[in-house]
Amino acid sequence: MSIYLHDIPLPEAQARFRQAIQDAGLWHVLGTELIPLDENSLGRVTAEPIWAKISSPHYHASAMDGFAVRAIITNGALPSKPLTLQIGPEAEYVDTGDPLPHWANAVIPIENVESLDELGDITAEIRKPASIRLRSSVAPWSHVRPLGEDIVATQLVLPAGHILRPVDLGAVAAAGHQEIKVTRKPKVAILPTGTELVPIGSQLKAGDILEYNSLVIAAQIKSMGGDPTRYPITKDDFDLICERVQEAAQDNDLILLNAGSSAGAEDFSAKVVEKLGQLLVHGVAVRPGHPVILGTIDRRPWTEDKTVHPPLSIVPIIGVPGYPVSAALTVDIFLEPLLAYWLGRRTNELQTEMATLTRKIVSPPGDDDYVRVAVGKVGDKLLAAPLSRGAGVITSLVQADGLALIPRGTQGLDAGEQVKVHLYRSKAEIEKTIFCIGSHDLTLDLMSQFLAEQDRRLVSANVGSQGGLIALRRGEAHLAGSHLLNPETGEYNISYIRQYMPNIPVKVIALVRRDQGLMVKRVNPKGIKSLRDLTNPNVQFVNRQRGAGTRVLLDYQLKLMTIAPDRIVGYSQEEYTHLGVAAAIASGRADCGLGIAAAAQALNLEFIPLFQERYDLVIPQQFAEGDLLAPLFGLLAEHRFQEAVSQLPGYDVSVMGTIVLEE
Amino acid sequence: MSIYLHDIPLPEAQARFRQAIQDAGLWHVLGTELIPLDENSLGRVTAEPIWAKISSPHYHASAMDGFAVRAIITNGALPSKPLTLQIGPEAEYVDTGDPLPHWANAVIPIENVESLDELGDITAEIRKPASIRLRSSVAPWSHVRPLGEDIVATQLVLPAGHILRPVDLGAVAAAGHQEIKVTRKPKVAILPTGTELVPIGSQLKAGDILEYNSLVIAAQIKSMGGDPTRYPITKDDFDLICERVQEAAQDNDLILLNAGSSAGAEDFSAKVVEKLGQLLVHGVAVRPGHPVILGTIDRRPWTEDKTVHPPLSIVPIIGVPGYPVSAALTVDIFLEPLLAYWLGRRTNELQTEMATLTRKIVSPPGDDDYVRVAVGKVGDKLLAAPLSRGAGVITSLVQADGLALIPRGTQGLDAGEQVKVHLYRSKAEIEKTIFCIGSHDLTLDLMSQFLAEQDRRLVSANVGSQGGLIALRRGEAHLAGSHLLNPETGEYNISYIRQYMPNIPVKVIALVRRDQGLMVKRVNPKGIKSLRDLTNPNVQFVNRQRGAGTRVLLDYQLKLMTIAPDRIVGYSQEEYTHLGVAAAIASGRADCGLGIAAAAQALNLEFIPLFQERYDLVIPQQFAEGDLLAPLFGLLAEHRFQEAVSQLPGYDVSVMGTIVLEE
Repeated sequence: MSIYLHDIPLPEAQARFRQAIQDAGLWHVLGTELIPLDENSLGRVTAEPIWAKISSPHYHASAMDGFAVRAIITNGALPSKPLTLQIGPEAEYVDTGDPLPHWANAVIPIENVESLDELGDITAEIRKPASIRLRSSVAPWSHVRPLGEDIVATQLVLPAGHILRPVDLGAVAAAGHQEIKVTRKPKVAILPTGTELVPIGSQLKAGDILEYNSLVIAAQIKSMGGDPTRYPITKDDFDLICERVQEAAQDNDLILLNAGSSAGAEDFSAKVVEKLGQLLVHGVAVRPGHPVILGTIDRRPWTEDKTVHPPLSIVPIIGVPGYPVSAALTVDIFLEPLLAYWLGRRTNELQTEMATLTRKIVSPPGDDDYVRVAVGKVGDKLLAAPLSRGAGVITSLVQADGLALIPRGTQGLDAGEQVKVHLYRSKAEIEKTIFCIGSHDLTLDLMSQFLAEQDRRLVSANVGSQGGLIALRRGEAHLAGSHLLNPETGEYNISYIRQYMPNIPVKVIALVRRDQGLMVKRVNPKGIKSLRDLTNPNVQFVNRQRGAGTRVLLDYQLKLMTIAPDRIVGYSQEEYTHLGVAAAIASGRADCGLGIAAAAQALNLEFIPLFQERYDLVIPQQFAEGDLLAPLFGLLAEHRFQEAVSQLPGYDVSVMGTIVLEE
Repeated sequence: MSIYLHDIPLPEAQARFRQAIQDAGLWHVLGTELIPLDENSLGRVTAEPIWAKISSPHYHASAMDGFAVRAIITNGALPSKPLTLQIGPEAEYVDTGDPLPHWANAVIPIENVESLDELGDITAEIRKPASIRLRSSVAPWSHVRPLGEDIVATQLVLPAGHILRPVDLGAVAAAGHQEIKVTRKPKVAILPTGTELVPIGSQLKAGDILEYNSLVIAAQIKSMGGDPTRYPITKDDFDLICERVQEAAQDNDLILLNAGSSAGAEDFSAKVVEKLGQLLVHGVAVRPGHPVILGTIDRRPWTEDKTVHPPLSIVPIIGVPGYPVSAALTVDIFLEPLLAYWLGRRTNELQTEMATLTRKIVSPPGDDDYVRVAVGKVGDKLLAAPLSRGAGVITSLVQADGLALIPRGTQGLDAGEQVKVHLYRSKAEIEKTIFCIGSHDLTLDLMSQFLAEQDRRLVSANVGSQGGLIALRRGEAHLAGSHLLNPETGEYNISYIRQYMPNIPVKVIALVRRDQGLMVKRVNPKGIKSLRDLTNPNVQFVNRQRGAGTRVLLDYQLKLMTIAPDRIVGYSQEEYTHLGVAAAIASGRADCGLGIAAAAQALNLEFIPLFQERYDLVIPQQFAEGDLLAPLFGLLAEHRFQEAVSQLPGYDVSVMGTIVLEE
């Protein structure tokens, strides 16, 4: 079954699209409009250079409150030899901004003169003494803003293609304009298609998919300076989609057909484009997002009776993939440069930095591969930690601090290698980021909330307790959350720290004690009570990954109870978080799993407490002493925070802040 | 006359203001509102953490088009040992996104199976063969998006205080929300006051000042997330201003009183605040912008008959200085942090970099001094070139790439010293900046326009031809414009290059030949015809600064004609640009000056051509060969550009691009 679309390299796809738009005479600014100069002009793009109609100031203006004089008559005034000037013929009071009398060429600031009337108070009268006395001379044109100091009539104020900022509006106004010619906003139609789609906020049944791509895309287009229109959902019906596309072609500059861009049974997008115009590209070698369609639609006069007229012009169309991450990246990659061109502005460019990868990335060698990453600075190293690569995982874009590009021609990169990252955040923000890696605990989410109030960003990656210690050894995190039980001694963490990060002085602080137990569906349909019940072949278990503290705890308890892991169905099925385990049970994919009470409560599961364990923070001394982590230590002593944590089910905060080890 | 306001240090001023707001119980988020989740939520700030109401996906979904199976029955399938599955009991066709049948736990992508019906085309029918054949087994849960893969119900989706971006809207929708609770936009009243103020677009007479501060401030507030209201201009009348302030206090969270914040005869702001509330600060040790007022206004019930009621609450008020640069910076320094607090978001922070100062800055030791700078990267050095320091020069903010902060306690910095710069532009933009220094020519403005189309930014600083060569020697620019005549040889530039930048290999390219001559008012009221007429004591001359090519030319010609400079009235009055000279003549400040025809035309002056001179570009070889300047060289050969330059009066482009010297 050779049914798949053909991926072509990104630059070739872009070139074909551009060529078609050029051939249609549409590769230029779409149009201009004259708008009033007000705060709504903010963010618009100048359509032509703005030249000054008037000078600013348009007269010689006093730059200070003081007395206008001819500079030459002040010559010779000295501290020891004061000079007296008669108000009227020799000096005239001026306020800041007042025009200079035609006979004057300098201003003496009021604080530099003595009034012979010797009035002590600031009143309007003081400005009109009979005479003033000065003890130094003034140079010609001092304290004067000469005509044109800011702007000279006919001078260039702003170039074409400039995105208007607040101060620009002032300069344009100062140059004598009350309207400004800007480029027209490109109109973009967003057509969500799919029988399975339901609007935001719908009650969902299995198979329903919430249609929020059009919302994200509309917001992207808006923030890029375009004018988006979201069309209603069209079901997967070839004729209906054709009709909607033709309708959208009437009064839009670009059409985005969302989903149906793959090659499945109900993926009509490519066929629609073929029927109504020209299919240029179906499939681009870029991940995520490869089932992209690029083409053009013939804009024909629209008639109710469906008479076919010859085309008037063409409208570019992009078939945007259905997965939300693919959709958002497709808009960034294909739409943004086109909108920039149509708006006559520069392309948005993210800042790039080289960063050290914390994990190996495998990448298809033929593709330009965009990997979402969390970015933090640990010591001197800028680190990029890859996030979920699922194209359906929109939260990975929400959490991303940047995109790492693995260019085509490479098969991926190893941990520790340098990768180019396009940053979504400023470096200032990144430098306030606390990188926490290791075992996940719900306390970290609360901590993140509280730290945000103190100008810190806590980013936590879940790689299990052991993974966290290894990351600390590699200098890839500021701290790690760990709950590793030593099966020999019953002690937590210390022996593992000695093993995994020898010779690194650390501080270990107890965070919480928490219940571990079995999560099962309400009301425990399989009657599970202890680990012993996991050997029942009808019980499907879901495990945590190797290295996770919960996994170590399970293995320890199984050994005590002499239960062989291979007797447990599902022992090898691994999840990376407590919530992942809970979700597997809630969905029926498993009957039970070991985890914490809070995760069970989150998904409305029953919780059978079995053990209590300690969860510690492990912090290398080099970070324990810096400014970055200071607010975190403060938090551990804060009543408000302890209170919030103790609200979580199965949590005991009595140990919080206790120093377990300090080296 | 000790009448001035008292400047207090910035942190103290900020602390007093904050304390007063705190005492009034207003130092927290002002309020929240529930808004529909649509593209208008973009940029709003979450008022509380957003937790997931539903999981995404909310069922086990097929991640591919293919066949749902129980993974276990595929065990043993090998390329050499294909396995046949019956559609119906053993396999079921699913599209991407379809729910997995309850009995299945994996999906085999359609491209990995062989249809026994061997149909070659993609039709709906092919999905329903009687049986399929596979040549490899699948692992459980492969090609399945398990329930909660993206979002698990109850999980934290966004923290409080998060500024909504396009992808966030998608995540919030995916988590089951169709509304979102955001913080209320603070309402800010902007009250322009001043009898001399006239609205944008007015016909101006001497002393009129265009009121555009309220426009800039409103745009600043809008871009910070606030809700600005611009009030009409109020003239300088104590009672009228009081009335307007009381009115604004009724339904605003903050009042900005623009101008009148100094201590002049008609500066009522401080007195208004004293009468209607509490004056906290009058004068802050920050430049530009020191006459800032901070205070609070008592909000009282508003009655038509002016009955005075006891205050209900207070409204903070800021007296914003009148000069446009001071006004904009005051808003950035005092308003932005308050709005951030009221909105519950982080303070906007500009990226900072250390840069090398190109010129000495003298700074009052008591003040925090903000100096606008152009920023460019020349070789390995990031350079900060100070722009005009006039508080009235709004174009200096338009041109600024950043603000250099000279902290209180220092008297300034020398050229070559490192200074901390808060950047307005991304480093990517700065790295595409061509730094041109030296003599100004109008061709450079055109060049800047043309280069913008090719992703380059030309920043030019006018320090005269000699200044440019010295800057090149110091490695502070990529190229210099120069028209330095050697009085001995009549040759241009070469001897000066040898003198000022020895041992630096350069490329010198001719740009234009242009007329130099005398500019006079129409219709030459003093009958000036040649340099000889400058010795007339009734003729007021305006000169260019020492080092400027035009100045060298003048001195050369004066020497040839044996005219002593001290016989010329105004010889020592210097301007830094051709347009500056023209403006001096247009305004009547001088009768004539030497310059180029285009400058005369710009200000509608008469031009008396005297000489023709060559204007060259001097480029060190190390920059002549890089990518950065390549588009500039391309331009010199471009007909469209040559055509545009030749439209300038007095310009001859026949030499353009000729290599004068290449080492």
